[in-house]
Amino acid sequence: MPLPISFDDITAAAARLDGVARRTTVITSRTADERTGAQLFFKCENLQRMGAFKFRGAYNALAQFTPEQRKAGVLTFSSGNHAQAVALSARLLGIPAVIVMPQDAPALKITATREYLPPLKGTEVILYNRYTEDREALGQRIAQERGMTLIPPYDHAHVMAGQGTAAMELIEQVRGLDGGGLDMLLVCVGGGGLLSGCATAARHMLPDCQVIGVEPEAGNDVQQSLAQGEIVHIDVPQTIADGAQTQHAGQLTFRVIRALVDGITTVTDAQLVATMRFFAERLKLVVEPTGALAAAAALDSAVPVAGKRVGVIVSGGNVDLARYAQLIGGT
Amino acid sequence: MPLPISFDDITAAAARLDGVARRTTVITSRTADERTGAQLFFKCENLQRMGAFKFRGAYNALAQFTPEQRKAGVLTFSSGNHAQAVALSARLLGIPAVIVMPQDAPALKITATREYLPPLKGTEVILYNRYTEDREALGQRIAQERGMTLIPPYDHAHVMAGQGTAAMELIEQVRGLDGGGLDMLLVCVGGGGLLSGCATAARHMLPDCQVIGVEPEAGNDVQQSLAQGEIVHIDVPQTIADGAQTQHAGQLTFRVIRALVDGITTVTDAQLVATMRFFAERLKLVVEPTGALAAAAALDSAVPVAGKRVGVIVSGGNVDLARYAQLIGGT
Repeated sequence: MPLPISFDDITAAAARLDGVARRTTVITSRTADERTGAQLFFKCENLQRMGAFKFRGAYNALAQFTPEQRKAGVLTFSSGNHAQAVALSARLLGIPAVIVMPQDAPALKITATREYLPPLKGTEVILYNRYTEDREALGQRIAQERGMTLIPPYDHAHVMAGQGTAAMELIEQVRGLDGGGLDMLLVCVGGGGLLSGCATAARHMLPDCQVIGVEPEAGNDVQQSLAQGEIVHIDVPQTIADGAQTQHAGQLTFRVIRALVDGITTVTDAQLVATMRFFAERLKLVVEPTGALAAAAALDSAVPVAGKRVGVIVSGGNVDLARYAQLIGGT
Repeated sequence: MPLPISFDDITAAAARLDGVARRTTVITSRTADERTGAQLFFKCENLQRMGAFKFRGAYNALAQFTPEQRKAGVLTFSSGNHAQAVALSARLLGIPAVIVMPQDAPALKITATREYLPPLKGTEVILYNRYTEDREALGQRIAQERGMTLIPPYDHAHVMAGQGTAAMELIEQVRGLDGGGLDMLLVCVGGGGLLSGCATAARHMLPDCQVIGVEPEAGNDVQQSLAQGEIVHIDVPQTIADGAQTQHAGQLTFRVIRALVDGITTVTDAQLVATMRFFAERLKLVVEPTGALAAAAALDSAVPVAGKRVGVIVSGGNVDLARYAQLIGGT
């Protein structure tokens, strides 16, 4: 059975995103290199539109809607970056959108999502009670009633292909910098959308490049799943990496990860905070906890990086400012 | 009398900096544009090596040392970004360096400067008592004794020309983005090195582009100087913009500013904090108070930007992390 996405899907996604998504900068750091003995290339997806790589996948999915789908609109359920990504993509493409969010989501996130939404009839944020209602059932019911297309946060071929353009760009940009390739690519893992897309790009462009996923130590469901050869479900993990608090990988993402990824490593919340502080102090970048996963693995040598050229996806920068100040201001 | 620097000096500086300084990214923001009615282009010099544009000027100056000057070394006095810029440039060029810093400078800044210094004989950080010693006299005495070349933080043609490459790059990058120019360029002002260099670049490349300097309200010595037609000296201003706590412009920088700059505007510390928060929350960038001066003028409409294409130099991101957390974490 062929994998759900191929490199061609990623180049097609890149064409759709051309001039719409930002070609985010790649940053190097003498300090980081001296500390690790590696040559690190940080792909700054925290500087992507709406502050995370998620825009790539959402836009790639919505841009492929048929005229009928565009008219009826898109629906998603997410309390995180995917909600904002769908909202912004819908706005750019003129597609009505319904975003289902928990009523106790941070007010800031609800507000930001509302700000991105298009001024179109049928567009709204629907809040639900996460203790009494099942968001998937709710979302599917509304989607069916209104004829809307559901775009889930990761387990969708168009979403996965879109996320893969981050690695494709990084590899192209590193080549542009010094003509070289990468020995290793580090990518954070929540539901596996980013990792599956990036692994597909890297395998094609740099067949010898190791692709490693990075999970929070408390939520290593994909590491467990690879060990057991099937998708493992876990309780909602207790970690500050809210974008990686998924309880299980997707059916599609797991197939790609199993086929193409070399391994999964984990980092602790304390390592995430130290890495966020490093980004602020040395690289002048605001990175959210989940966005620091891949870099933490490199900086704390959770994987052997010394002597290697390592691509690191910095996946996002959306974090409540008061919370951020608290995390980086501590000693 | 010709001005101390010309556009040719800036292109020559750009050639020296090619492959050494970062060609820092230019960021746009839909949110900032909607808020101001302008089209803003942020030149991210906080992502420059050592965290500020100062690297450009220091490296351009040191790269022009004769073999004798290189051997004898460089000296500067600074407690801020210029110290780190000279230290890093000296390291890259293999030049011994003496940095004269106040003994009560933040430990972090002294440490960072030491980390950048080259491992060469004759290299050291010399601490002085700012209440009992005169740093200029001390610096000049040591420079004379040791035959070292003094590179001041702004009032030096090579430093000014180097800083001007930031505006030159920005104008080139904006042209690369959409083929257009700029109607206005906003640049922070301390001693005037950055403003004089940027004005020289902008006047040549975009003759109709307005060039506006931005000072802290509490330290508007250049605004006063332009009004009086001569350099005005003020007391050390009370402002969080520590990079703009200069008491007067330089002889060379003021001549250029008087000839080429259209005006100076001021912003308050409260506006700087609000702008730093905007950068963190929306653009995911850590910006130091001084680095937020130019952007604050645009975001708070201290100058009429609506309907205009406006270049904004984000000059640096070096700020103590605990202090930064305190500034952005407040409500």
